Order: sequence, then structure tokens, then C-alpha cells
Amino acid sequence: MKKEELQDLEQLRHTCAHLLAAAVLKLFPDAKPTIGPAIEHGFYYDFDFSTPFSSDDLVRIEQTMKELISTWDGVTSREVSLQQAQEIYALNPYKLELIKEIADRGEPITLYTWGDFEDLCRGGHIKSAKKIKVSGFCLTHLAGAYWRGSEKNPMLTRIYGLAFEKKTDLDNHLVMLEEAKKRDHRKIGHDQELFFIDEVVGKGLVLWLPNGTLIRNEIEQLAEKMESRNGYVRVSTPHLAKEELFLTSGHLPYYKDSMYPGMVMDDGTYYLRAMNCPHHHTVYKYKPHSYRELPLRIAEYGTVYRNELSGTLAGLLRVRGLTMNDAHIYCRKDQIKDEFRSVLSMIIEYFTIFNLTNYWFRLSKWGPDHLEKYINEPENWNYAESVLREVLVEMNVEFVEVDDEAAFYGPKVDVQFKSVIGREETMSTVQLDFAAKSRFKLMYIDETGKENNEVFVIHRAPLSTHERFMAFLIEHTGGVWPTWLAPTQALILSVGQAHGDAVQNLRAMLQEAGIRASCDNSDETVGNKIRKGEIGKVPYMLVVGDKEMDLQTVAVRKRGSREIKTMDTAEFIEQIQKEVDNKLAS
Amino acid sequence: MKKEELQDLEQLRHTCAHLLAAAVLKLFPDAKPTIGPAIEHGFYYDFDFSTPFSSDDLVRIEQTMKELISTWDGVTSREVSLQQAQEIYALNPYKLELIKEIADRGEPITLYTWGDFEDLCRGGHIKSAKKIKVSGFCLTHLAGAYWRGSEKNPMLTRIYGLAFEKKTDLDNHLVMLEEAKKRDHRKIGHDQELFFIDEVVGKGLVLWLPNGTLIRNEIEQLAEKMESRNGYVRVSTPHLAKEELFLTSGHLPYYKDSMYPGMVMDDGTYYLRAMNCPHHHTVYKYKPHSYRELPLRIAEYGTVYRNELSGTLAGLLRVRGLTMNDAHIYCRKDQIKDEFRSVLSMIIEYFTIFNLTNYWFRLSKWGPDHLEKYINEPENWNYAESVLREVLVEMNVEFVEVDDEAAFYGPKVDVQFKSVIGREETMSTVQLDFAAKSRFKLMYIDETGKENNEVFVIHRAPLSTHERFMAFLIEHTGGVWPTWLAPTQALILSVGQAHGDAVQNLRAMLQEAGIRASCDNSDETVGNKIRKGEIGKVPYMLVVGDKEMDLQTVAVRKRGSREIKTMDTAEFIEQIQKEVDNKLAS
Repeated sequence: MKKEELQDLEQLRHTCAHLLAAAVLKLFPDAKPTIGPAIEHGFYYDFDFSTPFSSDDLVRIEQTMKELISTWDGVTSREVSLQQAQEIYALNPYKLELIKEIADRGEPITLYTWGDFEDLCRGGHIKSAKKIKVSGFCLTHLAGAYWRGSEKNPMLTRIYGLAFEKKTDLDNHLVMLEEAKKRDHRKIGHDQELFFIDEVVGKGLVLWLPNGTLIRNEIEQLAEKMESRNGYVRVSTPHLAKEELFLTSGHLPYYKDSMYPGMVMDDGTYYLRAMNCPHHHTVYKYKPHSYRELPLRIAEYGTVYRNELSGTLAGLLRVRGLTMNDAHIYCRKDQIKDEFRSVLSMIIEYFTIFNLTNYWFRLSKWGPDHLEKYINEPENWNYAESVLREVLVEMNVEFVEVDDEAAFYGPKVDVQFKSVIGREETMSTVQLDFAAKSRFKLMYIDETGKENNEVFVIHRAPLSTHERFMAFLIEHTGGVWPTWLAPTQALILSVGQAHGDAVQNLRAMLQEAGIRASCDNSDETVGNKIRKGEIGKVPYMLVVGDKEMDLQTVAVRKRGSREIKTMDTAEFIEQIQKEVDNKLAS
Repeated sequence: MKKEELQDLEQLRHTCAHLLAAAVLKLFPDAKPTIGPAIEHGFYYDFDFSTPFSSDDLVRIEQTMKELISTWDGVTSREVSLQQAQEIYALNPYKLELIKEIADRGEPITLYTWGDFEDLCRGGHIKSAKKIKVSGFCLTHLAGAYWRGSEKNPMLTRIYGLAFEKKTDLDNHLVMLEEAKKRDHRKIGHDQELFFIDEVVGKGLVLWLPNGTLIRNEIEQLAEKMESRNGYVRVSTPHLAKEELFLTSGHLPYYKDSMYPGMVMDDGTYYLRAMNCPHHHTVYKYKPHSYRELPLRIAEYGTVYRNELSGTLAGLLRVRGLTMNDAHIYCRKDQIKDEFRSVLSMIIEYFTIFNLTNYWFRLSKWGPDHLEKYINEPENWNYAESVLREVLVEMNVEFVEVDDEAAFYGPKVDVQFKSVIGREETMSTVQLDFAAKSRFKLMYIDETGKENNEVFVIHRAPLSTHERFMAFLIEHTGGVWPTWLAPTQALILSVGQAHGDAVQNLRAMLQEAGIRASCDNSDETVGNKIRKGEIGKVPYMLVVGDKEMDLQTVAVRKRGSREIKTMDTAEFIEQIQKEVDNKLAS
């Protein structure tokens, strides 16, 4: 959107806030209006209501807004003296407070009028009411809000609304909101019993339930396979270390506020780690490495901890414990290009498997105007940025370059995503690190037998943190998991009481074949059982009745289809195994 | 060993300490003897040497001990006055200190004489020197030791010796010590690059290297399969929680000293967990459970933390971070027996897979004389102990019963092991818990729709902690891993430079078939390469020369065999895959 369009939209939303206040005062003459700004997607206005007010009233207010707008034409304004303003708002202490502040700042006190509604205002309106008439607006919800955001002040009632240039824009936005609500990872996480957060265990600490743990393990096993095939080795290191390690890495003191507090033991102070790299550097240094051993690729499903404020924690998107498929690649300068290419190829392979397509790369470089922010190795910066660019060009992928967005220790390539509900986010990051080699004295023995400190480190986490990736994946799939990830892959339903044993036997057969199968043996009708399976979004439902008693054939209902198809049991097993093995999209 | 035999042996060892002192004073007349008790397997004596002393002197001393004993016959003793004793030991401040204390306690001061060596002593000798003449004794090593154990006192030289009734007993003990040294988990862990502990990361915190991580993951995958087949579900929970959770469980305050210190955050104090159960109880309580859903078996590869004193930490046997294949079974009272049976069967199945045979069970019951130590539910104690006994009898396994050894919350069955070097240890434990149900308000909905609090919890960790189990397994196998656990399963050796590509291609073939293969492409001779592979205890070595260039056949040298056998490559792959799939012992 262009800047002018944005400004137009903001003016529209500002004027809508006045329209809201006009409607409220028409219906609730005693209500005291306070302030009402434009915000992203719409506007709000805070009122002090003398009578009880509920969200049921929103319909009436919105209706009144629509009636009023037909009588509105253009806006007029006038400047008034402090005394005049104080007389006009004599009964409204909020406006009086605002008026006094305006006067104290030596600014003019202005009032704007639409129709017969006048309001204290600095301006910034649309010129004519026509724009609102053809626009799309609506009221959405209520919230409590302290006057000026301070809990010492009275609690006001905030009314939120949406406003867009055209009605179709509003409709699209409402559809998107509805979709986002349906795909909310907290809702689906709860409905499918994937995870929960418990106040007694603590905020921001995720407990993965059996269904969520199955998905977690499937993803982690995929990563193990991919990395093993690409020459990574796996380690397993403790989640904490003594402060000395983090003083070496620089996490202490620079990052201390974001770390959990230290634990004083009899031999020093221990900290939960905020990143896995210091432990991996320690593993690298466990023994000397010859130039022939590089690159060394050290991977771990590692957990790190961040001391976020408890009030900011939300679902899986903002947590205090983060687990990730992390790895650090230790390589010589001449190996940077190949390693970067290989990491980016692996990322693309992951995304293909997860059926994610709406992404591009972003090469973040150092800033020619802010060299003081970056490690002072110009030759390495120039070399590294040019090989990263070469890789992106040679791979023929969509990418942008941005100045002054690199990490302090080297350039990076981020993978940007457009989510199904239109939000842009960074999913993966690949960072080159020139600083670790000197901080940790990383060495290799070169061809001449000498110690060489030019060990470059690549940090990479292709699937973000597991928590963030799961939130993304739940939203992306809407909980419709591809068969290889579905906690229950096949749900077996009995037609009647007589089919209970056959159901159990079929389940055993499927489990023997490595398929995650559950049963519904209850007394309910087949129709009801199928409906439940549909809600649970199970990929396959198998109905067992008289004809299926010998288990030679199964009656298969595939997710999304209304048809029930009779198949050879062996053939069905082969088909689902193939689907799982090839990690086919649902 | 009977009590009298033990007493005889202790007298022999005590007398050997005198013999040691006699020999030292013969060779070093200026040395000041202090104290010299009998200890397990032998004896020691602490001396203050005026001249430098080294372990090279031990040979001469042992020789002198053997010469002296031929002149020894029987022991005589006399009582002396304080003044007499002070005159005799006028030059030995240590003995003077001891003498003064004896006198202060009003005890008689006695001196014992063997041959021409008299020593301050309370008695407890063998009657005749014959017993030493037919015994087996030797000196083993030196150590520094503060007088009376206090670092404020002078440092003395402690000489250690072994003594057994017969020479063959000594020889057996020396063989066992040699074996224990070769099988030391720290040595093998280092040689095979399985794990390390780093002072900067912190004491008692294990970093698993790639080889150790491979073994760890194999064992964990085995556990996942076994448990999935036995109806367990897996969860993944954070390593920490707020203090409220541990106040509910009782870990706080009762176990506080063994826990890491708390971390004060903006919403409360957090602790690293010392056990997994509180988190699993929280998972159990995530939703209501019908009687039909029980037993619920919740498993996790969970990590816990113990605040051991840094000075007591040693290798994998005493650590501060412990990870275990843990599970908690939530069942009704009428399900206890079946669940216990099933857990014990699973333990036996594990031990069969790991080729462990030297074990028995121990049923630990409450103590009729110390009822105050145990939760006051007599009916549950009697019921549970009798069903556990029934299970053990019905399973026809070797077991003992011990009173007053149960946990405070219920009876338990421990699995006792005799290690390859003769040490007895507890490997696994299965504990029934009557206390959790009321502490955590664990409920199920019974047949009548009512909430029922009679949820019994079984704690089980069949493979101990991973750290302890690995120490045991390393010692048990001596680092000769069965193929399914071996970090490198096949080592491919090139005969000459020309075979390098073939070696790489064979490696790729094996890896494709899921076999962990490494290459040795170096310029060394095949003989040298084979010797290296032998040291690394690799199950299979494959030699690639001219005849194997087409990769149709491989020249296979199996671990422990000197023979190199030519095989069809496909046949070899099938054979090793079968060995791995069936987890055959090496």
C-alpha cells in the first residue's frame, strides 16, 4: 500500500471514531467520551458509562452509526479559548484534563463538528462523509481500559471497530479473522490434545501431550534422517552451564536480562542456557581437528531458556523454554560457500516435505554507515556476503538484500514466510559467525601441521524453534495433518456389538504394520462415529461390519471424501505405509 | 562370608599393617609411624617421612616385609604407664597425641610386639605369624593424607596394601582389579569418544559425543518401541516448574537440599525438577479420566537434576543431571497386579536384549516395627504386598523379601545385579505409590459416574538412569558393543590408493541400507588399519582391494576372528541388517 493510501485510510478510521462517539452519545447521553484514535485495521473510542453497558449494545450503536452517517456531509472546525473549552466540557473531567494539557503546551484548542456532533480534536479527518458511506466499517468488541493506561485511574469501556476503504475489504478481513480463529493454534492444540500450559508448572513452559509428542517425534526423526544423510553428527548436551562458559560466549553480561537467574552451587554459579552454541563449541574443542575433518556439523535437538516477562507469554508463540533442531557447522573459509548452499538446499527440502511454498530469502548484510555495530573483519564481510549472494543466485531462488540487518558477528540469510492468514514471519535463519573463532579459540590443524584459528561457524535452525514451527504448522494445516504426522492415522469403527473383536484384531494388524490406529467400539451409530472422526480430522476411517469380519477387506473412508470404498486389507496397509514413508501431503 | 571368617581376615589385615610399619622403620629409621588400620580388602599405614619417598620404594618395603615375616612367630603385649609411653615415643608427636587421648579417656596404654617391632596398639591381632606366611599380601600404591583428616595438619604418606587369607584369593582380586581398570567406564568412554565432562560447563553434567549419542538414541528408540507395544503414551514436559508444584509433591521443603537452588522470576520461584512424577501427575490431571481409560501409562525420556556436592561427583556414576526412560502408570486398585506383572516382564525382556543374566528381585515391604515411617493405609499395604508377592511367585523368578525397606509411600520391587567385576547394585526399581492420589487429588470417574480418588501410581525406570546404565553397560561389555549398539558397525579399509573410490561407494551402499559405516582410506598398511579397527572394537571390518573393486563381493573380518571371509555384498548387508534388527548379542 502506498503512503498516501495509508494516510487516507487513517483519516477514514479517525473519522469513524467520531462517528462512534456521536452514536454513543445519541443513545447514552450521560456517557463521557474520552479519546478515540485510529489503529491498525480500524479504530476505538474509550467512554465512561454511568449505566451498565454490554456487548449486546454494540448492535444498536452500529445501527445508529449507519443512520447518523446518512445525515453527515462535511466537517467544520473552530478554535476556542481555554475558558470556552472548559465551559463546554464542564461535566467531562477527562476532556478537561486533555484541554488543560493542550493549553499548557501552548497549542490551539480546536473542536471539529460532523453533523450535530462536536468533539475536541486535533484534526486529521476525511474531507467528505461520502468516503465513509462507501466504506466498510463495523464494531467488533468491547474491552476494559484504564484512563491513560494507568491502573490508578478509573476503568473505562473501550469499543473497537474495523474500517476499510471498501466493503469488500472489510468482508475479506472478517473472513480472514474467522479463518485465523478457526486455525488458532491454541484452539486446535486444545481440541486435538496436542499441548497445554499449566499455571502451576509455570507460564511459557509447554507440556506436550501424547498427540503433540507423536508429532514432535516424527519431525525430529525426519530431521535426524535428513542430517545424518547430509553428514551431520548428533550430540546431547546439558541445558545449563557454569557462568564461565557464558562469559566466554558473551551471553554474560550482554544478554543477562534475557536469561533465567543464576543458581549458586558449591563450585560456582550455573545458568540455564539461552543458546546451544556455547555447548557445541565445547564439543568442537573436545579434541584437536585436522583440516581434513572439516566441515564438522554438530546437531542437537537442544533446549534453551529465555526469561521473558510473564505478562508477554502467549501460547506457543512466546514461551520461556524453546526446543529446536539446531546445528553448528565448523568449516574453513573455502568451505563456506558449499556449506551455505547445502544448508539452503536442506531448508528447501524441508519446506517441500511440509508442503510450504509461500516463502522467499532475505540476505542481511552489514551496514556501510554503521561499521561500529559489526565485528571489524572487512575482508571476511566482503568475502562472505559475496559468496552468500552467489549461492542465492546460483540456486535461482527468490531473494532480497538488506543493508544493516546482519548479526554483529556476520551476515545471515533468513527465510521469510507469508502465512495462510497473510502474516509475514521469519521461519528459519542461517547465520555466519566470524566472532566465535576468537572468543572460543576454535582451531584446526592445517596442511602444514600448524594451528589455524580461521574456523567459521554457521548457525542454522531450519525449522525455527519447535514451539514456533508447531504454531505455524497448526495454523497452516488448520489441524488437518498429513498422514505421516497425524497422531491417529486410522480410526476403526465397529458397526455393532458383534464386531468388537474384529476391530481389536484389525487394530493389532495395523499397529504391527507401524500404523497408528485407534478404535471406536462404543454403542453409538456409525454415523455418529464418523462425525466424531471428521471432527478429529483423522486421515482414514475404517468401518468394520459383517462383511469385514474376516479382515480380508476393509471399508475405507478417506478424510474429505464422503465415499466408503471397500479395499483389500493388505492393499490398504501398503497404500497408507507408502503415503507415510513418502511423507505425502494430505 | 561368615562373621568369624571376616573377623579372622580383619585380624590378618591389622597384623599386616604392623608388618608394614616394621619394614618401613627398618628401611627408614627416621620415619614416624602414626596409625594403620585394616580396611576392606587390605590395610594402610600413615607415615611422616623425613626424606623424600616415592612409589619406587614400595618394592623394597614389600621385600623387607617378606623377610621380616620369616623371623616373626607370635605376638606379645604389655601395659605401660603414661610416663613410660611418653618416653618411648618422645620423638613422635603423632603417637604422643594418641597416647594423651588414651590416657584422657582413662583407658590402658598397651604396646604389642611382633619380632623386634613394638607398636602402640589396642590389639586385635592374629595369634600366630603362620597365617601371614600362608596368606597373600602386597603393597599397591601411595597417597597423601592429612593427619587425622584435617587440612590444618601435616600431610602424611599413606601406603596401601591388600591382604587375603590365601595367595589365590589375592591373585583373583588382582585379576579383578585389572579387569575393572580395563572396563572402567571413564577410560572406555574416553577411548571410544562416547562422552566427556567439562569443567567449564560444570561438574556432574555429561556431554554426550556423537558416538555416545548414537548409543543413547538406539536405547531410547528401543524403549519407545517396547513401550508403544505395551500401551504406553509418550509426553514431553519441561525440566523445571514453579515452587507450587514441588510444594504439592512434597519435594519442597523435604528434598530441598538435594535440589538446585530456586530461580526467582517475575511470577514466582522456579526450580529444576528432581523427579519427573510431578509433571506426569499434571499431565494426568489435564482432563478427567473414565474408569475405562485406566491404566494410563505416561512415559518420557525425562531429565532431572540433583544438587550433589561437587567433590562427590565421579564419571557417570555420580552426576548432577540424570536422564531416564521413566514412566508412571495410573491404575485402579484391581489393576495393580496386572500392571506390576507387565512391568516386570518388560524389565526381563530388556535384560534379555542386553544379554544381562546375573540378577534377582527384591521385594521391599514396610516395617511392622516402624509403622510411623510409612503412609497410614494398612489395608493398601497388605493388599499391595501380597499381590506383588503373588506376581513374583507366579513369574517364577528369583526373589528375596526384606522388611522395613519400602518407600514411605508404598512397597517396591528392586532389581539387583551382580556386575562382571562382582559389585552388587540396584539397576531398576518399580515402586507403588499410595501417596500421590491424595497429594495431587488424582481422580477417575467410576462406573456410577462418581469421582473416585483411588488412583494408584506405579513409578518405573527399567533401565535406571541413562548415565548409570551406560556406566554399567560399558563395564559389562568392556566396550565390545553388540552390532546394533556399536557407533561404527562396519569399518571399510582400502588396500591401496586405487581403492579409495570403491571404499566410498561401498560406504554409501551400506549407509543407504541403514548400516553405520566408516572408512579408513589412509596410506597405512592393511595390517595397521586392522589393528586400529581392533582397538576400536568395530564389529565388522571390510577390506577393499582389487578383487572387491566391483563391490559385488566384500572381504569380511568379523570382530574376534582372525579370518577374512569373502562374501556376496548383498548377503553381507542382509546378515548385518538381521543382526541389528534382532538386536543380537555380540
